Amino acid sequence: MSPSPTPAYRSLWDSLLPIGRDPGTGGYRRFSWTPADLDCRAWFEAAARDRQLRTERDRNGNLWAWWDVPGSGKPPPGGPPPGGAPPRVGTAVATGSHLDSVPDGGAYDGPLGVLAAFAAIDELRGEGFTPSRPIAVAAFTEEEGGRFGVACLGSRLLAGAIDPDTARELQDGDGITLAGAMRAAGQDPGLIGRDEDLIARLGCYVELHIEQGRALADLDATLGIADGIWPHGRWRLDFAGQADHAGTAALADRRDPMIPYAATVLAARQAAAERGARATIGKVTAEPGAANAVCSEVRAWLDVRAADGRTLEDTVDQILGVAGQESDANRVALASRQESFSPEVEFDVPLAGRLAGALAARGFEAPSLPTGAGHDAGVLAARLPTAMLFVRNPTGVSHSPAEHAEDADCAAGVAALAAVLRDLAS
Amino acid sequence: MSPSPTPAYRSLWDSLLPIGRDPGTGGYRRFSWTPADLDCRAWFEAAARDRQLRTERDRNGNLWAWWDVPGSGKPPPGGPPPGGAPPRVGTAVATGSHLDSVPDGGAYDGPLGVLAAFAAIDELRGEGFTPSRPIAVAAFTEEEGGRFGVACLGSRLLAGAIDPDTARELQDGDGITLAGAMRAAGQDPGLIGRDEDLIARLGCYVELHIEQGRALADLDATLGIADGIWPHGRWRLDFAGQADHAGTAALADRRDPMIPYAATVLAARQAAAERGARATIGKVTAEPGAANAVCSEVRAWLDVRAADGRTLEDTVDQILGVAGQESDANRVALASRQESFSPEVEFDVPLAGRLAGALAARGFEAPSLPTGAGHDAGVLAARLPTAMLFVRNPTGVSHSPAEHAEDADCAAGVAALAAVLRDLAS
Repeated sequence: MSPSPTPAYRSLWDSLLPIGRDPGTGGYRRFSWTPADLDCRAWFEAAARDRQLRTERDRNGNLWAWWDVPGSGKPPPGGPPPGGAPPRVGTAVATGSHLDSVPDGGAYDGPLGVLAAFAAIDELRGEGFTPSRPIAVAAFTEEEGGRFGVACLGSRLLAGAIDPDTARELQDGDGITLAGAMRAAGQDPGLIGRDEDLIARLGCYVELHIEQGRALADLDATLGIADGIWPHGRWRLDFAGQADHAGTAALADRRDPMIPYAATVLAARQAAAERGARATIGKVTAEPGAANAVCSEVRAWLDVRAADGRTLEDTVDQILGVAGQESDANRVALASRQESFSPEVEFDVPLAGRLAGALAARGFEAPSLPTGAGHDAGVLAARLPTAMLFVRNPTGVSHSPAEHAEDADCAAGVAALAAVLRDLAS
Repeated sequence: MSPSPTPAYRSLWDSLLPIGRDPGTGGYRRFSWTPADLDCRAWFEAAARDRQLRTERDRNGNLWAWWDVPGSGKPPPGGPPPGGAPPRVGTAVATGSHLDSVPDGGAYDGPLGVLAAFAAIDELRGEGFTPSRPIAVAAFTEEEGGRFGVACLGSRLLAGAIDPDTARELQDGDGITLAGAMRAAGQDPGLIGRDEDLIARLGCYVELHIEQGRALADLDATLGIADGIWPHGRWRLDFAGQADHAGTAALADRRDPMIPYAATVLAARQAAAERGARATIGKVTAEPGAANAVCSEVRAWLDVRAADGRTLEDTVDQILGVAGQESDANRVALASRQESFSPEVEFDVPLAGRLAGALAARGFEAPSLPTGAGHDAGVLAARLPTAMLFVRNPTGVSHSPAEHAEDADCAAGVAALAAVLRDLAS
C-alpha cells in the first residue's frame, strides 16, 4: 500500500502520456484504429512484455495480457496446447479498462484502469504472490464510441450485445467503416462478434476507473465501489429545413432548423432538471454552415441518463415532444432515432461484497455509489460477475483535458486493486 | 428582347453550370482561389475571348472584360499605349457581378449577372450597336465571404474599404490566409488594396442579380430596380465553458456553453421579429463535439440586417444582452465581436431614374425595392454611381441549391440590361 507512486507506475504513465495528446489543449484524441490507438496498443504490449505477461488480441480487437497460473497448461496464443492438461476455463480474474478517448478527453478516463492493473501486478509480484487463478489485464476497443458512435463497442461485440454485421458498417465522420478501419490496421473484421471461448475463460471482471463526478470528493473518500450504472440512451435528431438567404428571406417564410434545435437544447436541460436526470447535447452540426445563410439542416446528438428506466423514458418523451412541436411550428422536418441504449446495470452483489471485504482488510473504506457513466464492466455484467472501483476525482470534471486525479489517490487505487486481485486469484 | 434564351446564352450556362457543383446536393461550392474558382475564372476569360473582349485581372484578383471604344487609344494590358490618344478615363459603363458562392449555394446568385452581361453584349452586337463609352464586364472576387469570412472582399479592396494588411491575414477554415491562397493561385497578394487607377476609369456600375426574396413575385413583376441595401452586420460569438462527462456531471456543476447559445438563437429570432428585421445564426460549431460530453466551447456567427442603422443596433443590443445574461447564469465566458459591418446604402437616384427610363422605353415595368442582401454594387456606391437590376425569384429562396429563376425572366433581364447599357454607353 504505497501512498505515493512507484518508479514502475511513473514509468508506465511517462510512456503513455505523450500518445495522442493535442499539444494545443493538452487533451487526448485516441480514436480506435487510428495511429494514436495503434501506439496505445504497442504501449500495452510492451508493458505486458516487460512483465512477462502473455499477450493476446481477441477477435474483436480487444487486448489481453495474461498472468497464467504456473504449470496450468494454459493454451498458447493461437490454439489449445498439443498435449498437457486442459486449460483452466471460467476462472480467470480479469481487470483493466480502455485506452481510447473522447475527442479532447482527459488522461485518466480508461488508461488509469489499465495502468493500475499492470501496477497492481507489480505489487503482487513484489509481495511474492503466485495466483491460483489466471489474472488477465484487458484493454477494450472503442469504449467511448468516439470514432464509430457506439460506446463499449469492443465489449459489446465480445459479449454478443451488438450484431457484427451492423458493427462492420458503422462509419466514422469521414465515412470510413469499422470494417475498413480494422482491415487497414491489420485486424480481420470478418472475425468480429460474440466470443464464447473467451467469455468462458473469465471468472469475473473488476474495472478500476477515475470517478467522473464529485461524489467521492463530497464524501471525503479516496475510493468507492460502484453499485450500478444508470440506464443511458443516445438519440440522433435531424432537423431538416430549407437553406435561404439571411438578408432577404422574411422570417415568416423561413424553415430554419436552428430554431427548433435551440428550443430542444433548452427543453433537454429543463426536462432533466425536473427529474434529477442528465440530458446533454454536446455535438451539433449545421449544414451548409454559411454565416450569411439560413441553414438547411441541423444534426444533433442527445445523451440522456437517469436513475431508472422509467425516469429516462419520461425525460426523453418530454424533450422529443418539444422538438416535434417546435419543428412543426417552423415547418421543419424532424427525424429522431435512438442510436444506442444501455439498460440499468446492477453490479454483482456478492462480488462487490468481496471487494469491500478485501479493501476493509487493507484499511480502505470504500462507499458504494451509482454512476451515470457507461463502462465495459456494465456490458460484461450481462455475461459474468463484474464490479467497479472508483478513484476520487477532486473536481468531478471528466471528458475534458482538465480531468485529474491526485497521485496519492491513484496509488491507493493500485494498492486496493492489488488487494482485490490477491483475494480473488488466491 | 427575346422572351426565351438564345443559343449563345444557353451555351454560357452549359459551360458554367458543372463547375464546383456538389453532385449530392446540386449546390455550388465555388470558394475564392480554390480549383472551382479558378475554373470559373477560366470560363470568364474564355467567354470574353469568344467575344473579342480584352481581359484584365486587377490587383485585387477581380476580373474585367473590356469592350473598348473603337479607336479610343485605350491602354493595352500592363500600361498606357506608347503613343496615340490618352485613355478615356471615368467614362466606362461597368456591369457584372460575382462567380463565387456560399457553401452549397444556388446557380444564379452572382453568375446570372456576369452571364447576363456577356449575353447583353451579344444582343447589342447583334443590333449593330457601337459604344461611345467603354463597356466593362466585372466578376468580383469573394463576394460571399464564403472562404475568408468578409463579404464583398474584392470590391472592398478595390474601393479601399478594407485595409490590405488586415485582408492578407484573413484565414479560411483550414487556417490558410488570403495571402497564401492568392500566392498559390499565382496572384501577388502584395499588390492588393485601393486601386484608384481602375476606379478612375469607371463612370458607373450596374449589377444585375437574381432577387433573393419574393418581393417581385408578390408584385407579379419580372424585373425590379434596387433603391438601397439595408445596413448589415456580422458578429462572432464565442461561448467558452468547461468540457465534462454527460453522464456524471451534475447539471448544477456544469458550465455548458450550449445552453446560452440556444437561448441566443431564440433571442435573435425574437428581437428581429419585433422589429421587422432579420437575425440569423446559420453557422455554429461545438468543440470538442463528442456525443457523450458537455462541450467546452460553442462558436456562432450572428447575421443581423434591418431597414435602418438604429433598428439594427437595437436588434443586436437585445440579442447580445440575452447572450450575456444567459452566459453569466451558466458561468460561461462570452466573447463577442463584430466581424463586418456594411452601413445602409442608397443607390444613385439619377442613375436609377435613367435605368427606369431605359426600361420603360423598351416596355419593361420595374418597381423600386430595397434589399437585405449585400452586393459589390453597395460597396462601390461609395466611389461611383451604382445601380442594381433584380430578376424575379419565384420562391424567394436563395443561398440554397433550390434557388431558381425562370428562363424567360432571365432572358428579360438580359434584354433589359442590354437596353440600359445601350442607353448609358451611347
